Amino acid sequence: MMTEGDMYIPTYEDMLDAHKRIEPYIRRTPVRVSDYLNELTGAQLFFKCENFQEPGAFKVRGAANAVFGLNEDQAKKGVATHSSGNHASCLSYAAMRRGIPCNVVMPRTAPQAKKDTVRRYGGNITECDPSTSSREATFAQVQAATGGDFVHPYNDPRVIAGQGTCAKEFMEQTDGMDMVVAPIGGGGMISGTCLTLSTLAPQTQVIAAEPEQADDAYRSFKAGHIIADDAPKTIADGLLVPLKERTWHFVSTYVSEIYTASDQEIIDAMKLTWKHLRIVMEPSSAVPLAVILKNPDAFRGKRVGLIITGGNVDLDKLPWLNAA
Amino acid sequence: MMTEGDMYIPTYEDMLDAHKRIEPYIRRTPVRVSDYLNELTGAQLFFKCENFQEPGAFKVRGAANAVFGLNEDQAKKGVATHSSGNHASCLSYAAMRRGIPCNVVMPRTAPQAKKDTVRRYGGNITECDPSTSSREATFAQVQAATGGDFVHPYNDPRVIAGQGTCAKEFMEQTDGMDMVVAPIGGGGMISGTCLTLSTLAPQTQVIAAEPEQADDAYRSFKAGHIIADDAPKTIADGLLVPLKERTWHFVSTYVSEIYTASDQEIIDAMKLTWKHLRIVMEPSSAVPLAVILKNPDAFRGKRVGLIITGGNVDLDKLPWLNAA
Repeated sequence: MMTEGDMYIPTYEDMLDAHKRIEPYIRRTPVRVSDYLNELTGAQLFFKCENFQEPGAFKVRGAANAVFGLNEDQAKKGVATHSSGNHASCLSYAAMRRGIPCNVVMPRTAPQAKKDTVRRYGGNITECDPSTSSREATFAQVQAATGGDFVHPYNDPRVIAGQGTCAKEFMEQTDGMDMVVAPIGGGGMISGTCLTLSTLAPQTQVIAAEPEQADDAYRSFKAGHIIADDAPKTIADGLLVPLKERTWHFVSTYVSEIYTASDQEIIDAMKLTWKHLRIVMEPSSAVPLAVILKNPDAFRGKRVGLIITGGNVDLDKLPWLNAA
Repeated sequence: MMTEGDMYIPTYEDMLDAHKRIEPYIRRTPVRVSDYLNELTGAQLFFKCENFQEPGAFKVRGAANAVFGLNEDQAKKGVATHSSGNHASCLSYAAMRRGIPCNVVMPRTAPQAKKDTVRRYGGNITECDPSTSSREATFAQVQAATGGDFVHPYNDPRVIAGQGTCAKEFMEQTDGMDMVVAPIGGGGMISGTCLTLSTLAPQTQVIAAEPEQADDAYRSFKAGHIIADDAPKTIADGLLVPLKERTWHFVSTYVSEIYTASDQEIIDAMKLTWKHLRIVMEPSSAVPLAVILKNPDAFRGKRVGLIITGGNVDLDKLPWLNAA
């Protein structure tokens, strides 16, 4: 067990335990390649398709690890979280698979499609106002009423250990990589990737990719301490949240570099992937390819893994069509 | 060797030879599943993602089998075809991989994106007027000038044997299926599927799915002879061409049923697949799911394979957005 002060930091063994625990409930997602994108970048790219998880995002790994790790007493009371994104639907999905309650606090302004997905997986939604104070007050009420175990979207050792199972599969599915690039928001996927690769493949660099318009992780990385933005705005709406202590531990210890890309560069990379890999992925998932296209010298000639984090997109509102 | 009159009909052994020949040049595409679509249909669905071939369509299988089966003398003169769709780009791709010329006759009205793809793979385009007489005259000139070997998009035993390799992989990747549903246009994929399954899994039914607005194969099947339409119009633009003798042989001998779906049903199924499988596929590839949703009793409780034939779509013109 590894701790920093009172903070439990998950270990490689926690990740191995997580993988055994969650394997029946997740997909071993395929790795896609594209000759076209390889020629375009001069690198050998491997795309790990976490958008192909049943609920459409890697977050089912951490969520399932938390849900299926609960003892029977706690399981009866279920789980609870606040999220308006993929964590809410993935936690609902995992809870449904175990047959336990899942309570989610969401801002009343969240997109209807996100609410529908949570409800389809049996999640109970309590709406709050779109402010931090309302969210925290509402969540405290819900948790007091239900006794649900709080599963934070990323600052939770069970969640980080779960996300780390993705990098383990990725290494098994390729003959090793020089670097793995993943998007960074709160840092859950990056932390899990660091957790796994720092033991399994310490020579493989972990690189984070962040939207320019929500570059708090980049600035934190350069400053050497967490900087949290108030209300960043970017097309990559899965990457708005700030780092927390546990994810900062991994980012500050293991990440080699953080690159940023503009919203237009993210949209261009997203469309390029849809066209040449023929997969549906979110703007957030396009940030890694966007930074590779923007910094070709850093990647040329390398074997580079990209984690496609999710595929939940409003097909009626594609970002490259909005400009028209 | 099996013939009907002077017509050579490819055999199971031809398909096995084809698979050995083309394996270095094609992808063993993954099979995707969706709990959501299984619940929706009451069937267990398996989607074989041929849209993930490098040039985005199953047609690379037949094209590569023709190209890599040429002797050295013929290879120097290259290949030739007329097509405005995936066959043109897949044949160009295969020829590029062997380093031989590929000449394609295309109507001058073909979409610029299709022409760009052929040229990206090194194909030489000769434009013709958008009429059968102009196409045939132009093609005769091109072939006389180049001596290129004519590779028909589907009525060619090498092409049918190549397409049959998809069903072989599909059976290896699943624990058997009760039925396999594929779109039908000229009948190349359906014929290859019949060729393979009639030997490898004769208990597995082969079912064809066709657009209502281009239902010549359905009417041929019911009438017992080939009926060719003049100029059908449907959103499923990969399925406009009529059956020919070789594909009629397989359709009339082995196909269990042909179902049809309207353009709106095809668009709905396409959007559903993008949303829940998170793959980019063409309208033509959505016809199998459309007919399953339309005829649930025929598929409920069965293990059903669907062949996703291609993923080359104009991302700026998605059919569900055109109505708005």
